[in-house]
Amino acid sequence: MGWGDLGAFGEPSKETPNLDQMAAQGMLFLDFYTANPLCSPSRAALLTGRLPVRNGFYTTNGHARNAYTPQDIVGGIPDSELLLPELLKKAGYTNKIIGKWHLGHQPQFHPLRHGFDEWFGSPNCHFGPYNNRERPNIPVYRDWEMVGRYYEDFKIDLKTGEANLTQLYLQEALDFISKQQASQQPFFLYWAIDATHAPVYASKQFLGTSQRGLYGDAVREIDDSVGRILRHLQQLGISEDTFVFFTSDNGAALISAPKQGGSNGPFLCGKQTTFEGGMREPAIAWWPGHIPAGGVSHQLGSVMDLFSTSLSLAGLQPPSDRQIDGIDLLPVILQGQLIDRPIFYYRGDELMAVRAGLYKAHYWTWSNSWEEHSKGIDFCPGQSVAGVTTHTQEEHTHLPLLFHLGRDPGEKYPLSFASEEYQQAMERISGLVQQHKDTLVPGQPQLNVCDQAVMNWSPPGCEKLGKCLKAPESDPKKCSWPH
Amino acid sequence: MGWGDLGAFGEPSKETPNLDQMAAQGMLFLDFYTANPLCSPSRAALLTGRLPVRNGFYTTNGHARNAYTPQDIVGGIPDSELLLPELLKKAGYTNKIIGKWHLGHQPQFHPLRHGFDEWFGSPNCHFGPYNNRERPNIPVYRDWEMVGRYYEDFKIDLKTGEANLTQLYLQEALDFISKQQASQQPFFLYWAIDATHAPVYASKQFLGTSQRGLYGDAVREIDDSVGRILRHLQQLGISEDTFVFFTSDNGAALISAPKQGGSNGPFLCGKQTTFEGGMREPAIAWWPGHIPAGGVSHQLGSVMDLFSTSLSLAGLQPPSDRQIDGIDLLPVILQGQLIDRPIFYYRGDELMAVRAGLYKAHYWTWSNSWEEHSKGIDFCPGQSVAGVTTHTQEEHTHLPLLFHLGRDPGEKYPLSFASEEYQQAMERISGLVQQHKDTLVPGQPQLNVCDQAVMNWSPPGCEKLGKCLKAPESDPKKCSWPH
Repeated sequence: MGWGDLGAFGEPSKETPNLDQMAAQGMLFLDFYTANPLCSPSRAALLTGRLPVRNGFYTTNGHARNAYTPQDIVGGIPDSELLLPELLKKAGYTNKIIGKWHLGHQPQFHPLRHGFDEWFGSPNCHFGPYNNRERPNIPVYRDWEMVGRYYEDFKIDLKTGEANLTQLYLQEALDFISKQQASQQPFFLYWAIDATHAPVYASKQFLGTSQRGLYGDAVREIDDSVGRILRHLQQLGISEDTFVFFTSDNGAALISAPKQGGSNGPFLCGKQTTFEGGMREPAIAWWPGHIPAGGVSHQLGSVMDLFSTSLSLAGLQPPSDRQIDGIDLLPVILQGQLIDRPIFYYRGDELMAVRAGLYKAHYWTWSNSWEEHSKGIDFCPGQSVAGVTTHTQEEHTHLPLLFHLGRDPGEKYPLSFASEEYQQAMERISGLVQQHKDTLVPGQPQLNVCDQAVMNWSPPGCEKLGKCLKAPESDPKKCSWPH
Repeated sequence: MGWGDLGAFGEPSKETPNLDQMAAQGMLFLDFYTANPLCSPSRAALLTGRLPVRNGFYTTNGHARNAYTPQDIVGGIPDSELLLPELLKKAGYTNKIIGKWHLGHQPQFHPLRHGFDEWFGSPNCHFGPYNNRERPNIPVYRDWEMVGRYYEDFKIDLKTGEANLTQLYLQEALDFISKQQASQQPFFLYWAIDATHAPVYASKQFLGTSQRGLYGDAVREIDDSVGRILRHLQQLGISEDTFVFFTSDNGAALISAPKQGGSNGPFLCGKQTTFEGGMREPAIAWWPGHIPAGGVSHQLGSVMDLFSTSLSLAGLQPPSDRQIDGIDLLPVILQGQLIDRPIFYYRGDELMAVRAGLYKAHYWTWSNSWEEHSKGIDFCPGQSVAGVTTHTQEEHTHLPLLFHLGRDPGEKYPLSFASEEYQQAMERISGLVQQHKDTLVPGQPQLNVCDQAVMNWSPPGCEKLGKCLKAPESDPKKCSWPH
């Protein structure tokens, strides 16, 4: 989902009354970022509070490449990483993930081995259908074991776009919340739905209800579901005890637009890029009785802050034996403070850009290669800024491209290198980059090796369902990351 | 000002609390259009309720050219046109225009000859400073006579961007409203401020206060002024008797961005074009006690509707001896109805595009010429949609380019000519176009002839100020309209 997909963020069909109301009752973040322009690394960053380059969710197979966890990926979340639910356990929290995990699907990466108590959802994206010979369909797990596969037991009709998955995930969330309320136990729910990820889907009752087509139907179903969850908290009388945050793991995938991809509003390009359209996200904090209604914040925020903020809410300290990139946003949310901190935009292990205040410096620019572009793969459809949306990897490390995101949110007008404004802003940013690089200890890259043998042939529990498949022989290879 | 310039419409710095509150208390129009991608024709359309091609505010000097009223224009609003204030007079209204008139500056076009009772402002844009030999500075009028000139008596500091004009125009508005309230006389105030038109300006107290630079400062001053006007109405106890509408006369001038031009949000291109960025406008209706708070409308609306709606509010009928393009929006505003009507996008006397429902068909496309583009004149900076943002005038009358603005508000993905959806939508639109063309009686074009002798050399009242200048000899020529 992109920054521009909600009515509160200017989507012209304004079809998200529940999320808009959530913002009106809570705090809208206008300058909130994900940690990577792609799903897996962002989700790993959210749960560890650390940049993908630290927690291992990156590749070194090529320079500045995006990588994620398809089902032939060998790597996943290292045991050495401390995940938010692992830490929350110490404060008595019950932790549940509903939806897409995406931090590795081999047994050692299972979410219940990394702090979650319950899981209903899938380890990978809902791509498919596959033929179960070359490639198995993605399993859906309940806790430790699979309970079926997408397209087989959990239908997704690619022709009509119909699938009731969001309703299943919603019911699962409502039930979990009810159970926790009944037992008076604190909980952490990571509601990681994926209806707006291609192939986009919506339940029958939402199909055809949006001005925006199938993608809009999916947004409407998510919006409706969020509204139901919030009302459920209110009806159970625990809304004032429950902190809720809504955001997305990357910008709208413009490559899939208009049918399967959303809107990044006035921002440049989309998913896969380190332009604003790829990493600036809709974000709303909600906590009635604590967050003043109708708040708007320009705090530079990150999904990694949800790690530190959640720990703070639980009265816990973040780990002190490692670098944590997230910050505690409670002073921002509750007292309206502004904390000065930079945002780092990575592609692989390359620092592509940095934002400090309203300035953003690009050290490298790349949309995608000419080779891919000539095949119709375009992360910036209809947009072309000379020298900025480059189709070769362009290095600007000696003279970064600098934008003022207040005057130029669309990153279309680089500041003159000769201007005093450029000199002053770059002096500050150069210091931040130096400090960042000096202290950076990259993690072991997890997204380098792919092997057809590790695919979801025989997930735990498959034998009970008669759904075990025979894995081919192991044949580890470098994963191919073309962009 | 562009669709994307207000917080309520998704501007990422969200610096328009007063206009956003106006929307929250009233009705937000998300699909509201001006009648032309340029100022003068739009304003003529607003005041006559008629398309520029009918009321004469167009040129035939070239095909599909934008034209306006610079100070060497010979034409202006014809006597045969009936303006909103002329009609409102019959219902006892006192009518005032504050700010830019732009419907011709020769004596016969004076606003007080066309229904207004009072005027404080200028006949043309505040371009300058001029040297008073080749070209006089633009006069500022109070009612029938000039009271000074821009840059001379009404300062605009082009270096700092400082000018207190919006404050003058604000005070004038507050005083007029107070006077009308005191005399218990109904009034029509046309508050036609122009701070966001290049050269952009703001008062000292607003300079440097926006994240968006000088343009944002100007927007903030307008926002603050609107807030003051609305509070003034409330304090005088006449807010429930006063209908207020906020909108703009064309999209943000991206050619002047980022310093002097604003944002069209997710829409394509800007001022001067018939893409959405050129003609879709922010629009808010406010009338406490009558309009339900927080309303959002997808009614296809037009500035021309303000003509018909205002007449309706005053209990008057629109003239029956001519075609009126505006419709009465009161059923939309008060009862939430949706009225099916098309939107016509003109450049000169060429019908460039038509919107019906969510479909928009382009019969002609043109951003601007290669010749101009090569000189750096760009109405679509950073945007380039193959076959759509064309630099030659491209005719599509036999097979119009069709967009679905719900799925594709940015006009980036034309529908396939072969699709059933295309056939069905075009069948309907073709009928509307045929009907429109069959009944169209173009007015006498007013914007064809320019003459240096008609410039503001000696406006009425100049003798009292010692500010009369000697006009050169008459030398009428075809005006040059390059785009």
